[in-house]
Amino acid sequence: MTPIIKTDLSDELYNLENYIIHHSCDIEHWFRTQWLEYSAPFYASVDLRNSGFKLTPVDTNLFPGGFNNLNPDFAPLTIQAVSIAIEKVCPEVRQVLIIPENHTRNMFYLKNIFELTEIFKNAGIEVRIGSIDPDLKKEEIIQIDEKNSIKLEPIYKKNYRLFLKNNDSSTFSPCAIILNNDLSAGIPEKLKDLDQHIVPPLSAGWPTRRKSSHFNYYNEIVDEFAKFTKIDPWLINPYYEKLGGLNFLEREGEIQLAEHIEKLLVKIKKKYSQYNIAHEPYVVIKADAGTYGMGVMTIKSSEEVINLNRKMRKKMSVVKEGLQVTEVLIQEGVHTEETINNSVAEPVVYMIDHFVVGGFYRVHTNKEKDENLNSPGMHFVPVSFETSCLMPDQGRPCDDKANRFYAYGVIARLALLAAAKELQN
Amino acid sequence: MTPIIKTDLSDELYNLENYIIHHSCDIEHWFRTQWLEYSAPFYASVDLRNSGFKLTPVDTNLFPGGFNNLNPDFAPLTIQAVSIAIEKVCPEVRQVLIIPENHTRNMFYLKNIFELTEIFKNAGIEVRIGSIDPDLKKEEIIQIDEKNSIKLEPIYKKNYRLFLKNNDSSTFSPCAIILNNDLSAGIPEKLKDLDQHIVPPLSAGWPTRRKSSHFNYYNEIVDEFAKFTKIDPWLINPYYEKLGGLNFLEREGEIQLAEHIEKLLVKIKKKYSQYNIAHEPYVVIKADAGTYGMGVMTIKSSEEVINLNRKMRKKMSVVKEGLQVTEVLIQEGVHTEETINNSVAEPVVYMIDHFVVGGFYRVHTNKEKDENLNSPGMHFVPVSFETSCLMPDQGRPCDDKANRFYAYGVIARLALLAAAKELQN
Repeated sequence: MTPIIKTDLSDELYNLENYIIHHSCDIEHWFRTQWLEYSAPFYASVDLRNSGFKLTPVDTNLFPGGFNNLNPDFAPLTIQAVSIAIEKVCPEVRQVLIIPENHTRNMFYLKNIFELTEIFKNAGIEVRIGSIDPDLKKEEIIQIDEKNSIKLEPIYKKNYRLFLKNNDSSTFSPCAIILNNDLSAGIPEKLKDLDQHIVPPLSAGWPTRRKSSHFNYYNEIVDEFAKFTKIDPWLINPYYEKLGGLNFLEREGEIQLAEHIEKLLVKIKKKYSQYNIAHEPYVVIKADAGTYGMGVMTIKSSEEVINLNRKMRKKMSVVKEGLQVTEVLIQEGVHTEETINNSVAEPVVYMIDHFVVGGFYRVHTNKEKDENLNSPGMHFVPVSFETSCLMPDQGRPCDDKANRFYAYGVIARLALLAAAKELQN
Repeated sequence: MTPIIKTDLSDELYNLENYIIHHSCDIEHWFRTQWLEYSAPFYASVDLRNSGFKLTPVDTNLFPGGFNNLNPDFAPLTIQAVSIAIEKVCPEVRQVLIIPENHTRNMFYLKNIFELTEIFKNAGIEVRIGSIDPDLKKEEIIQIDEKNSIKLEPIYKKNYRLFLKNNDSSTFSPCAIILNNDLSAGIPEKLKDLDQHIVPPLSAGWPTRRKSSHFNYYNEIVDEFAKFTKIDPWLINPYYEKLGGLNFLEREGEIQLAEHIEKLLVKIKKKYSQYNIAHEPYVVIKADAGTYGMGVMTIKSSEEVINLNRKMRKKMSVVKEGLQVTEVLIQEGVHTEETINNSVAEPVVYMIDHFVVGGFYRVHTNKEKDENLNSPGMHFVPVSFETSCLMPDQGRPCDDKANRFYAYGVIARLALLAAAKELQN
């Protein structure tokens, strides 16, 4: 089922999508030249928002956690892409080790890990799951559904190499390590100074990564892309500001935060009036480092941040693994105008190397409105994309399924390019 | 619909298929190391035969002509593979030129060309069809079904580059040329000394290519593959002999041909008795250079070739484009034991670069039994593979759909490796 868009596309967005569909050759050529210069991350997912007047990425995840939500019809595409991606890391690859998040019993996430192992297996690669959770002392088997289970094993290190123990005295010591842990808890000693390839690199983890830096690179990419599409970059780029020196609990930096928000709201309002958009603008405040779902707040006026209640300030002050929030990204809010059965639907595009391999909609159920957002995975129903994002059909209208997904794949790849630049620098 | 196999798999073939399914990691790893040494052809199709006691390639086509028969569900897989393959030829590719067969009005073939252009288009590459047919003086549009048509354009050459003319004074001169013409008529001057990349290379055409040479390389590949699978190479390799100095019309070389056939039949009978196979052995005589469908003859005893009638000798003496047959490949006949609705079904596996992208069954209809085989395309119904060849399922029996196709993909890739070695030498 493909979501419907509640509002008509604005002329500008229509023109953009139309341009994308009808210039797919120019666009793919441009991407090809970019990929000669920048190496795509091993894998990534990009959250998009389509407001009918704006289509933008809002978050780029370098440790994607929803492989189980992709359309099984496109599994061969994912397998092929993984083969290519892993051959670049280690051409004679025979085995890989996946490092998942620590301490998680989230069944959605564990199914993602299972699916990821299946993809490698189907690409003819032996795969095992090694945990860096210091509490995991011996192997643990977790049933993820009636038929399938995954086995978590403790990781050992010797001579700059990670390995797992086999039942006999031999070891499992693969040439490539696939990180699916965003390192929110910091980079463990075990992962430092390795002789093995680790993808994505440790620098993709939250100890070093900053959302604002990602969007700085995204700015550069969009400016180049806008040059030949001759579109207003704003249509595919949310405004943002970065602010540091905050302490939400102690109310430090509150005034500066309000000022930055005000500044951003004025900029957005200007654009809204330029395009005759009647919506009320808003901004989203996100921890500059850390995962989505925690440390996130939606604000419609700058006064709101002055009068945050204690609960709200507490919520904003830490993200996963107790990481303190002192820097934030203040991002222009982009309305979602896609719905499935009257529930809001947000597209997420999945990529391996520089290939789009599918995606899904996060459909927020009504129920979710009354609950908080702290436990992602529990509050949305995933609906996988019906078609691949690979085949625009120039004979059909630009909001036709195949064409909408192609456009989503293009915008998602712009964010992927930004991530590539980010990791290279 | 997947064909049923009439007879049970012999123990040996069962063991082989079982080995393939359960050692997919070893096999894929072995392929990966091979592809580091040999570059896969741009594309290829491999005709397989499964007799229940033997599973072998019988023909490897470097100018595949059935892209229209592939399962549309796997189109994204083909598009992704073409992107990778073409990036290797010319990383900044923007346009390609396809050169099809000359003089053909075979609608099946033209649909193949249409499908091939669609694959490139969907990979974001501008594609046009340039004919080397000297009789084509101006562009010609051919309707291939109610909705679609293809445009053939005359090719021009200047400064070592091929180009097509545009409506204005500019030209279309792509960096890559995709050959879908087997050059049976010889290599035209136009294609010599080009500054553009041409794939597959001219040496893949019948003026230079020899089936016997392909199977020499296939022998080497199979020997290596048999080393770690510990199987009798005969199970995946048809015996063959090569013979030159023939003139079928003048009955020159007839005796030698009979002797070679006899020798081969003796070898096959020995294997049949080793494995208790009750079938009557036969050999297939094929022109060593030239396309399948012409210059092909099935023989069950050596005496038959002594008493060929004039019609048969005429049929064997020339292949496409009037090429004289003086050299033949005498190949062990492999029974097909797969049937769909009681019609014989032969699998054909399609590959782009080193990726299997699908395949189909050539189902020979009853009607076809009474007719000759001279016009391939008219006498079979294609039935595309239901599943990709990428995902073995170790939890299921080895003749399960997914597993059978995976095994087919493995054997087809052995032939692809042979073709890679062939082109490299």
